[in-house]
Amino acid sequence: MTFSEKSDLIVSQNNSLVSVGLDSDPDKIPPHLKNLEYPVFEFNKAIIEATHDQVCAYKPNTAFYEKLGTIGITQLKMTCDHLKEIYPEILVILDAKRADIGNTNDGYASFAFDYLGADAITLQPYLGQEALKPFLDREDKGCIILCRTSNPGAGEIQDLKVTNAKKNEGNNCLTVPLYQVIAEKIANDWNKNNNCMVVVGATYPEELKTVRDIVGDMTILVPGIGAQGGDLEATLKAGLNSRKAGLIINSSRGVIFASSGTDFADKARDEAVKLNTAINRFRGKGETR
Amino acid sequence: MTFSEKSDLIVSQNNSLVSVGLDSDPDKIPPHLKNLEYPVFEFNKAIIEATHDQVCAYKPNTAFYEKLGTIGITQLKMTCDHLKEIYPEILVILDAKRADIGNTNDGYASFAFDYLGADAITLQPYLGQEALKPFLDREDKGCIILCRTSNPGAGEIQDLKVTNAKKNEGNNCLTVPLYQVIAEKIANDWNKNNNCMVVVGATYPEELKTVRDIVGDMTILVPGIGAQGGDLEATLKAGLNSRKAGLIINSSRGVIFASSGTDFADKARDEAVKLNTAINRFRGKGETR
Repeated sequence: MTFSEKSDLIVSQNNSLVSVGLDSDPDKIPPHLKNLEYPVFEFNKAIIEATHDQVCAYKPNTAFYEKLGTIGITQLKMTCDHLKEIYPEILVILDAKRADIGNTNDGYASFAFDYLGADAITLQPYLGQEALKPFLDREDKGCIILCRTSNPGAGEIQDLKVTNAKKNEGNNCLTVPLYQVIAEKIANDWNKNNNCMVVVGATYPEELKTVRDIVGDMTILVPGIGAQGGDLEATLKAGLNSRKAGLIINSSRGVIFASSGTDFADKARDEAVKLNTAINRFRGKGETR
Repeated sequence: MTFSEKSDLIVSQNNSLVSVGLDSDPDKIPPHLKNLEYPVFEFNKAIIEATHDQVCAYKPNTAFYEKLGTIGITQLKMTCDHLKEIYPEILVILDAKRADIGNTNDGYASFAFDYLGADAITLQPYLGQEALKPFLDREDKGCIILCRTSNPGAGEIQDLKVTNAKKNEGNNCLTVPLYQVIAEKIANDWNKNNNCMVVVGATYPEELKTVRDIVGDMTILVPGIGAQGGDLEATLKAGLNSRKAGLIINSSRGVIFASSGTDFADKARDEAVKLNTAINRFRGKGETR
């Protein structure tokens, strides 16, 4: 099964565009779990059990696991293995924002796809398509490339005005923001294996609309809903594709840290249901499961 | 001690601008080590013992450790701990090419600086200065930001022509390649704690010269010597600063995999001495230690 087939299948099966970000910061998980041997894994397992029918994807961010060193990577691996075993149909997106030269990217691709068994990885565009080949060549795996990130300072580099060589004539200075040039390259050139997606933050609905126009029906991963303050309705209005899909909308802290008590998993489910229901109502897809 | 003080000290103490890249790909280390409990660590330890007086820095690239998963991270940690214990004056540069939003970068900074005890980390510029704050704020640690990478396809994004708002008047279209805009931002704005460096590949001496002119005496990390084919003399000519220093010149495969036999450490030393001697001869710094 190709990555895009797997992606379409779970979106339709769970009637969900929701990704839950497993940003399971060991300092923020409920206190009653902290004395367990693998507190982060136990936390993730409970979150997964409570939300699995409401999501199309889980997105662990490597930073929160690396923070703990070896024992963090162990629990990341346990989480991915658990997902593959119990819910193999759900996408595992490794939010790692990696990119190095080609020879080195082989190592990162092994880590994400072979060791962890992730279905997709987030990537930086700065080293170009040639460097990303070890990821792009994997037809069965998703390459989710940063385009317009959700942070307040995203525009410093991503909005730099790039001259459009094709359209410039004479001394006219027609420019396009860098993030749009990146979106164009991904849509028109890097996506030969139909396994690319782009990242656009929910905190920038106008930019999301522009990227939607550039990439056609390609799926866009949208972080920034919840704790970062992205507006869900504006996101859906700007980002849904012609099939009223094509978005994976991620909430991390807003779901997984909805409560720090013993009811954390129930509260996480409530938030996931709320998000999924709101999205599906907007899409006209009726009630969630 | 600030990062730049530590960096100046070891360069002068070991009379060396050489970094040895501990890109210790488990598939490429000598066969006779492979049955040991921690083959990558034993390999690194031998390389370090053979080369420590010829270098100012060791630069492990996380990709080659992550490839092995947990056991790789264990050996990366063992390597960093060993260096801190035996040669605390030598810089440890974690070549991780990370960057995420601010909240998440906290985790990566903890991993690099607190867990591993690295002195510096390589970073992606795409999310901007605001996102990199958790790294930039650490005055005692180096932030080594990608500017012009060594890979053949680096120019696809890094050479995109950005309009120079300050200099443009009327319809004139004055542009600057993206990598130069990044170099300017780092030198003029991001380096408030005097802890920034930039990366420019040895495979692009002209771009190195341009970046040198932009960043003044700031240290530039130069990968791409050795296996990637960068020209040492062209690099030195283009890159040395006004004090005939300001470069950290990295060779990875060319040093550590000089031999795959039981003589691997001796051969690595030969290559490190050769590189260090050639650099110092060009700098007019006489014989190496």
